[in-house]
Amino acid sequence: MKDELSFLQQAIALAKRSIMNGGGPFGAVVARNGKIIAEANNVVVSSHDPTAHAEILAIRKASASLKSHDLSDCVIYASCEPCPMCLGAIYWSGIKRVVYAADRKNAAAAGFNDGLIYDEIILNPSERKVVFIQFSDAGGEEVFKEWDEYEGKIPY
Amino acid sequence: MKDELSFLQQAIALAKRSIMNGGGPFGAVVARNGKIIAEANNVVVSSHDPTAHAEILAIRKASASLKSHDLSDCVIYASCEPCPMCLGAIYWSGIKRVVYAADRKNAAAAGFNDGLIYDEIILNPSERKVVFIQFSDAGGEEVFKEWDEYEGKIPY
Repeated sequence: MKDELSFLQQAIALAKRSIMNGGGPFGAVVARNGKIIAEANNVVVSSHDPTAHAEILAIRKASASLKSHDLSDCVIYASCEPCPMCLGAIYWSGIKRVVYAADRKNAAAAGFNDGLIYDEIILNPSERKVVFIQFSDAGGEEVFKEWDEYEGKIPY
Repeated sequence: MKDELSFLQQAIALAKRSIMNGGGPFGAVVARNGKIIAEANNVVVSSHDPTAHAEILAIRKASASLKSHDLSDCVIYASCEPCPMCLGAIYWSGIKRVVYAADRKNAAAAGFNDGLIYDEIILNPSERKVVFIQFSDAGGEEVFKEWDEYEGKIPY
């Protein structure tokens, strides 16, 4: 538990340093077998990348370091509760434990409102504020037919 | 509408080509003012990156090309309905129109199950299958206090 707190405090330290360096106030650390293997802070504005949240970057670095998209033996420590995008990345990475300090309410009070995404994701696509339109006869299903039939595929 | 269909068909073509190149069966295109500015396919396995979905990569390329994290004047065309991670990225990018071909049911039938994430994201963090633990007294809120007080910050 002492290690977990120190990993989380490192994520918080990254978040505080990020503010002074033109980043957003978020930091994250990925650990494996009790050792930090990746750390990152939010650089959305400075890197011109809306996906450059601390958790996404830490997951990408950890995966690169392990040469695997599978982080199921890793834990992520985040200065704040992961947003829906980062939650999705966590699930796809296979990470099974998420430790965080501040939560979405604290983030919203500071002007980072994940609430819209939580509200919209549960709606039918056609009912969202962002327009989602399906062209169901454009041939999208054919792709999966080809995937099913292709023997050389690498499933994941 | 003809342009939109052709952009979507390009996303589908990228998805089909991806299968043969060791990628996942997904493609995406970002367009602005009626022109394609970025395209990508899923390379999760080959690039050792669980976040390397077609939409994430197309958004990252479009943002890099425009030198801005703000894609609010862009449209994304995806061979399949964006997963929760990519939906989050779309909202953070400011994209306001999403056109897609196959949907989450088609994807699930092909073995790509976004369902767990949709099911889990609406739960309280403490009730999820993936362990989410908040250390609420670790100092996470202090980060946002420093953010609030820092006059040199770049809000976004």
